Amino acid sequence: MKPLRHFLTLADVDVDELKTILKIAETVKARFKEGNRTEDSEILKSKVLGLIFEKMSLRTRVSFEAGMTHLGGGSMLLEERHIGLGVRESIPDVSRVLSSMVDCIAFRAKRHSTVVEFAKYSSAPVINALTDEAHPCQALADMLTIKEEFGSFEDVKIAWVGDSNNVAASLVEASAMLGCKIAISSPKGYEFSQEEIDKLTAQRQPGFALAQIEDPREAVRGARVVYTDVWVSMGQEKEEQERVAAFKPYQVNAELMGLARTDAIFLHCLPARRGLEVTDEVIDSPQSRVVEEAANRMHAQKGLLIWLLGN
Amino acid sequence: MKPLRHFLTLADVDVDELKTILKIAETVKARFKEGNRTEDSEILKSKVLGLIFEKMSLRTRVSFEAGMTHLGGGSMLLEERHIGLGVRESIPDVSRVLSSMVDCIAFRAKRHSTVVEFAKYSSAPVINALTDEAHPCQALADMLTIKEEFGSFEDVKIAWVGDSNNVAASLVEASAMLGCKIAISSPKGYEFSQEEIDKLTAQRQPGFALAQIEDPREAVRGARVVYTDVWVSMGQEKEEQERVAAFKPYQVNAELMGLARTDAIFLHCLPARRGLEVTDEVIDSPQSRVVEEAANRMHAQKGLLIWLLGN
Amino acid sequence: MKPLRHFLTLADVDVDELKTILKIAETVKARFKEGNRTEDSEILKSKVLGLIFEKMSLRTRVSFEAGMTHLGGGSMLLEERHIGLGVRESIPDVSRVLSSMVDCIAFRAKRHSTVVEFAKYSSAPVINALTDEAHPCQALADMLTIKEEFGSFEDVKIAWVGDSNNVAASLVEASAMLGCKIAISSPKGYEFSQEEIDKLTAQRQPGFALAQIEDPREAVRGARVVYTDVWVSMGQEKEEQERVAAFKPYQVNAELMGLARTDAIFLHCLPARRGLEVTDEVIDSPQSRVVEEAANRMHAQKGLLIWLLGN
Repeated sequence: MKPLRHFLTLADVDVDELKTILKIAETVKARFKEGNRTEDSEILKSKVLGLIFEKMSLRTRVSFEAGMTHLGGGSMLLEERHIGLGVRESIPDVSRVLSSMVDCIAFRAKRHSTVVEFAKYSSAPVINALTDEAHPCQALADMLTIKEEFGSFEDVKIAWVGDSNNVAASLVEASAMLGCKIAISSPKGYEFSQEEIDKLTAQRQPGFALAQIEDPREAVRGARVVYTDVWVSMGQEKEEQERVAAFKPYQVNAELMGLARTDAIFLHCLPARRGLEVTDEVIDSPQSRVVEEAANRMHAQKGLLIWLLGN
Repeated sequence: MKPLRHFLTLADVDVDELKTILKIAETVKARFKEGNRTEDSEILKSKVLGLIFEKMSLRTRVSFEAGMTHLGGGSMLLEERHIGLGVRESIPDVSRVLSSMVDCIAFRAKRHSTVVEFAKYSSAPVINALTDEAHPCQALADMLTIKEEFGSFEDVKIAWVGDSNNVAASLVEASAMLGCKIAISSPKGYEFSQEEIDKLTAQRQPGFALAQIEDPREAVRGARVVYTDVWVSMGQEKEEQERVAAFKPYQVNAELMGLARTDAIFLHCLPARRGLEVTDEVIDSPQSRVVEEAANRMHAQKGLLIWLLGN
Repeated sequence: MKPLRHFLTLADVDVDELKTILKIAETVKARFKEGNRTEDSEILKSKVLGLIFEKMSLRTRVSFEAGMTHLGGGSMLLEERHIGLGVRESIPDVSRVLSSMVDCIAFRAKRHSTVVEFAKYSSAPVINALTDEAHPCQALADMLTIKEEFGSFEDVKIAWVGDSNNVAASLVEASAMLGCKIAISSPKGYEFSQEEIDKLTAQRQPGFALAQIEDPREAVRGARVVYTDVWVSMGQEKEEQERVAAFKPYQVNAELMGLARTDAIFLHCLPARRGLEVTDEVIDSPQSRVVEEAANRMHAQKGLLIWLLGN
């Protein structure tokens, strides 16, 4: 029996384990790109991934489901109305029962605490497939994309421009663990607290450096990765006007992108609100890696699934 | 060609067939528990189970879908809005078409008569995945759980405490066929009629005995299995107040549980309304087998699927 | 690498390719009918079909999903609310991302132009699974059904009785390519324009002939296939009264069917509105092939999927 491991944030793995997951991802991606499906189709033979999604999703769902099919297993989407989590049935009860039937659960929850509670009672590994606090699977995909582009994480500076949100949190955590430099540029009131930074960088490695820089122009200087995300996430619609005003100077457009290194790439976890946080000229430019990054969700998560469930 | 068989109630199989299904279930469960997925993954290779669900479900759906994946096949969930059964298209037409494309259909219907009509026109086996009259798959799981606990059905007395509903009906039927004793304790007005009892016990075997006992305290005396279910099922919300009042004395709490044998186990088909039909102290106690019982839905149904579809 | 091909209308393949697809379909169907699942289960091993469905569907969805399972792959249903196409995210963005993760996309869209735009940005083959303009997968199934019935397309005259709609359009296109005769009988105002006919018959072969004949009695004379469809399609509910009045004389009943050849078969793409475009006596008669035709959706699409994705 493999020991039970969850993946709720990057804090659930150590630096070596994170590197192992990325290494497996690179290997299965290479085989996939060669059109070699047969070898991988035995790895998670007949294993089942349950997906609990409290929020709409395209990339997350498709990447997990396609990945399980590639690895010889299956998956099933459990939407809120299917299970009535916490309404029809308590979280511990659903967790105990579901985890007795499936091999792994990917959970996309409105609140991080829901996933934490669910994992507590689960006899199968639980993967955070996005919560309000963290998006560790996205960080895996991001780091895989960066590694592919630059060969290593050494001398890579990431500029995060926008909201210090869940995606940014996991990106900081991954950067710390892999020794990347990262500049976080958020408007006043949208930055990480020092306490948050301390927590996210607990496993920091040599090479890592973090700066919170209010001016996005200064933040992107010397960056090889410019990364942004939507200004208004699902559930924040009420704050829309206020947020759009605050984030306006943080738009990633050709001018801002021009201040980064000439070999810089643009990342975005998608979906993008074109014309708001990013302009068409940037997201559709040769510097944009957003499609590769999205595809890497699938490859990175296959690495994670194999690490959690494989023999 | 295998002859076409349906599984709408336990009356669709004879005693030997029921034992065969449970035996297959035990065998595949043992292999599953050993982590052996490879062998079973060829049994229903490329076969397809369609799930028609008119009602929300967690256990039923996950157990069927995960089971099919384990056995090398696939499944697909067809919800009411997907097929418009009886509204967009007549039941015979949907049945003929669907059964020409899938190998088996598990149908969870509001009315038993819908499944009966559907099966009439189906060229593929139809499984009752819960109707207002019967829940034969639950009974398979229950009997598997009892067998695992006590080694055989001899000298096992079951006490059903609560509503004489669909779950109870199939449990009576299974008990009769396997020679268990069963006491049914329902409030006045919620008991089975003699006609129902006669029908459910048509295949009774030596060792079987049934008593309807209004007083739950008397009913659980000597029981090795205490079983209850929600007082208000889906669709009965209007009668909620009246039902809660009638069933209040039938709560399975520590006191009532204490009247059963000391080796007694507690069963519940879930979801449970904790604090109503069962208290936390019982459902979370070492005597509770509700998680194993839920997991046995999957193992029992794998037995059924192999029996219906395997070579 | 296979060159990227889409299947949005029959114009996307040439006559030889169409015949190849039908030939593959016949081969896999024969193996399926023999109960031989093993051989085919390696053909699309671990490949993934994404289904984008803007409209409700039974046949289309089940036929594609079951087919992928038979061929060793998997599938996933993406409903409008899952992806927010064009609302949450632009069509090009969804297309680029989705096609980077799945091997093929079957798209059922309200507007044909949506599928055309989607295909433009897709790196994976896109299949039209029904639009307002065309239903090429239905035409594959229809031609397979006709071939099975009559051995060849020579001397087969099809009478289409009803609306000159998307199903009729693809049927005309397929008839032209395979050298069938076809009579289209629609009420005034519901016929194809000459421009449409010219476009649909661009690849016509010897043996093909088309006539638009307003009188259904004249149209079915000498026909070996009588084909109709609902008078009011999804989205046309507002025109219901007007349409029912216009199409009343076009009902396929025993009298009309009696004017066709004695060996004539009845086809309908289903779901049928019994008592409107077709009577029970016809659709339930020995001449009816509607269940076989529906099942052939699956077999024909397996031919298409293998042609698009197989090695």
